[in-house]
Order: sequence, then structure tokens, then C-alpha cells
Amino acid sequence: MASKHRRKARKIEIPGADRPKTERRRAFRGRGKNPGGLWLFGAHAVLAALENHDRPIHRLAVTAAAMERFGDTLTAALDERPEDIRTEKMEQRALEGLLPRDSVHQGLAALAGALPDVGIEDLAPESHNQSHRHVVVVMDQITDPHNIGAIMRSAAFFGAIGIVTADRHAPQETGTLAKAASGALESVPLVRVPNLARAMGRLKEMGYWAVALEADAASTLPDAARSGPIALVLGSEGSGLRRLTREACDATGMLGSTPDGGGIGSLNVSNAAAVALSQLFGPGEFQ
Amino acid sequence: MASKHRRKARKIEIPGADRPKTERRRAFRGRGKNPGGLWLFGAHAVLAALENHDRPIHRLAVTAAAMERFGDTLTAALDERPEDIRTEKMEQRALEGLLPRDSVHQGLAALAGALPDVGIEDLAPESHNQSHRHVVVVMDQITDPHNIGAIMRSAAFFGAIGIVTADRHAPQETGTLAKAASGALESVPLVRVPNLARAMGRLKEMGYWAVALEADAASTLPDAARSGPIALVLGSEGSGLRRLTREACDATGMLGSTPDGGGIGSLNVSNAAAVALSQLFGPGEFQ
Repeated sequence: MASKHRRKARKIEIPGADRPKTERRRAFRGRGKNPGGLWLFGAHAVLAALENHDRPIHRLAVTAAAMERFGDTLTAALDERPEDIRTEKMEQRALEGLLPRDSVHQGLAALAGALPDVGIEDLAPESHNQSHRHVVVVMDQITDPHNIGAIMRSAAFFGAIGIVTADRHAPQETGTLAKAASGALESVPLVRVPNLARAMGRLKEMGYWAVALEADAASTLPDAARSGPIALVLGSEGSGLRRLTREACDATGMLGSTPDGGGIGSLNVSNAAAVALSQLFGPGEFQ
Repeated sequence: MASKHRRKARKIEIPGADRPKTERRRAFRGRGKNPGGLWLFGAHAVLAALENHDRPIHRLAVTAAAMERFGDTLTAALDERPEDIRTEKMEQRALEGLLPRDSVHQGLAALAGALPDVGIEDLAPESHNQSHRHVVVVMDQITDPHNIGAIMRSAAFFGAIGIVTADRHAPQETGTLAKAASGALESVPLVRVPNLARAMGRLKEMGYWAVALEADAASTLPDAARSGPIALVLGSEGSGLRRLTREACDATGMLGSTPDGGGIGSLNVSNAAAVALSQLFGPGEFQ
């Protein structure tokens, strides 16, 4: 369904041109975010970007070793692209000079433009025809790019429609996030909004039931989630949900199936998100 | 149950003294691994280490800001320790000089000795009296300390008995791993073995049913796992399980409850582990 979403977006000549250009829309436009482009790196992130024809690719840098390993896949992906992208063979050290320190790049890097704008309205359940439950993930103050990337990857794996995050509290779309997302950045829209509580209000108007994941909730997540579209709301590990975010939720649920409500400590937030998604997409959903 | 395990170990005056000192035992002895000690950092990792009286602590470095924030908790933990540990107040820069680059330390660092030896025999189900299923996690070629740490944290959360990993393929117990484990390193034994397949054979003799998590398995994990103790076997994201590891498994299972067997790509290995553990500790286990 995510790729369908992209296909739909591709019909729009100028992304966002058919939508009112209010201040709010401009606030979460992607185009201005990385004016010079963004270096994506790592095999999954780069190949997924090449396969996503809505993702502008300005340059493609490849080491000799990576060309040997991924050459066929790269050629196939490049053949499918509407535009001509020249592959730049590079020494490993030169490629590393383009990337953040200690990037795990596997010899592949692509200078990419921003994805087309996706707004909260694009997450309406009726525009996503799918056989399983409609779920969006709402992230409150989760800022670590590894965690955001891993959550995006889980969202893609389980078939969530999109991720919503506050513009101020999340890092810009970065190569590290894209690497951790392992290609999911190309298929699951990351919607940045200026005001998370207001966006949640809009999701609820669209038919989403907003459930916050909290360790001390009175019921389990599967019990707190009713049938129908679900907005799964995740806070940061340290500070949890902000007051306005919590007030915008319809219910709270804790992870089911933990012995005695869970042992010491808590889960890493991306691990908690994965378990929560697996529980929302329980066997009952598909059998 | 994990803390019980530690308590049991504490009764042994010289760890390992009651066990035959074969070459194999020596191979996974912890004492020689970090002869000068290991700098743990981050609030959870350091506080959990202080609360674990089996963990030798040689030094404790604290910034003024951390003292203000964690002082009461630190004092309480230090009061409980059998030995006298002097708190060294340090400038942030001096503390950072002790740690790996870019460590997220929250102003707390402790120079720690190795934990008492834990061997595969210590994972026998009968020595872990608990109300829920006995599960150990076996990691094959998972080397990223963030992933190992997050898996340990999930193991602690869900109440797994221990983690088994090959001596050669995992990094030494490091500060980064400990930070990612968020204290779980102190409560879930990490058993390093020289030969993973042989260790799995021993687990099976003890009554464990070895189930490998694989994306293309014919049945789901809950179906592949029978009742009783389970050894959950995880391969690396890239190369999966080695042949001998796979051959040592009784069954393979894929994550249940994914739409159409999962969307694009796959999960991060620690996220997959968390979902797998949540499915092994299903509601049926506890209700």
C-alpha cells in the first residue's frame, strides 16, 4: 500500500500544487529541508531510493568493490529510472569524505533530493485500500535517528500507513535515519507536523482511534485498541508523552504478553514499537 | 529470576571454583577479558552495575550536573555496597576522556571489573524456578553492540533466562553494549561459548527445544515452539544462520501476525527478537 501511495503521488506534477498553500502546509514541506540534497548511504537505503522514482537522485557514488557486489542490481534499478544517472566510481576514502564520520556505507552513496510532500490528509484510511488494519505511528519527542529508522522499518514490515512526528522534535531526514530505516524511508511516508496534538485531532476526525503505549496502563494494547484504524502513539523512553499529546489520546495500553507486566527496566523504544505493531496486527487480523 | 541467579552466584566465594577448570571453561571465563576493567557509562548502566554487588566497581566518576540529578540514587546504591567506593567529581571533558568518542554518558561513568563466570550449565531450567516459560536467546554472528544490548534489554524485560553467543563472533562486553542494554547486562547472563552448535546440543540435552527465527519458515514461531523450555535462535540480518547452527535447531518459525508474511524488507534483528520473545511469552503463558 505504501508503494501505491507513492504511485498516487507521482501523478501530481508539482507536489502540493493541488493543496492550499497555507502557512501550515509550508511548515512541513520537504523541499526546503535539504536544499543541497542529502547523502544516502548503505546498500538497502541506496537501492530502495533508486527504485523509488519519486526520489530525485542527483549523484551516485560507488566503490569498485561495491560495483562488483551490487553491479547487476544497480544496473537493473538504473535502467528503470526515467532519468539518466551516471555512476561515479570512487575510492573508498573519497566516498567516505562525502559522508558523516563512521558511516557504514557498504561502498554505496547517493545524493538525493527530498521526497514529495506528504501531509496528514494523505493518511486518510479511505485512500489506503488494504486488507488489514489501518495503523499510523505517532512519535512524540523520539529524536534518535537509529530509533526513528528502526521504527520506520518495522512500520514498513507490518504494513503501517505512515509515521507522524513533530517538526521541531525530530531530526531532519538524515542519512543515518535512512540507513537505519533500510529502505523504509522510500515506502512509508514520514509526515512532519508543526503541532502533534492538532495532527492527532485531525487523525481522530478521519476515524483513527488514538492509543498511547504506556508501561503502567490499566489494560493491554490489544484491549485498548478497538477495531478500525489505530493511531499508535509512542513517547520517548526518558520523558514519555507530553501532556497535550497524552490528552489527545483516546486510550492507553501496555504491551500484552509480558510476564508480571515486564521484568526490569523497559524496552528500547523501537523494540516496543515493533512489539506493539505485532500485537495490533494480531493473528485475528489476518486469519 | 535473573536477580535470583546473581544472588545464587554470590554465594560462591571464588566464582567457578566448584567447577572443573577444563580448557572449555577457561575459554569463556570472564575474568581475563578486561584485565584493566571496563568503563561503563550512562545512568541506567552505571546504576544497575552499582546495584549488582557481584559487579566489581573500581572507580566512579560523576560530573557536578549528574551529582545534582542522580546524587540521591547514587548515595543509596553506594550505601548498600559491601565495599567503600569513592565518588570522583569530574569535569565533563575529563570524564569524556575516559570513554569512547561520542559516548552518551549523562555525566556518569564507572570502571568495572568482569561479572562472575556464567556457563551453559547455569542455564538449566531446573535451576530457574519461575512461573513462566524458560527461554534462552542464542545469537549466531550478531556482532553489533547496539543490537546485542537491545536484545539483552528485551530478554530482561520479557524474563528470558540468559543469552548465548559464540566467543569469536561477539564483541567483548563493552561500554556501548552495556549502555544499549540499559542495565540488563547486570541481570541477564551473557554466556560466551567457543562452539555455538555444541552449546545448543547441551541446551537440548537440558530440555530446551531449539527454534530458529527465519523469515521463510513454513510455520509461525508460536506453532514451531512446543510447550516447555525454548532456545530462540537468531541469525544476523545479512547472512542468517550458519549451517551448523541451523542443523542444531529442532524447528524454524517465522514471526506470526504479519500481514501477508511481512511487508518490504525485514525487521532490525533486535526488533525481530523483541517481537519473537513477546510471541513466545504469549497471553496463554500467563493467564
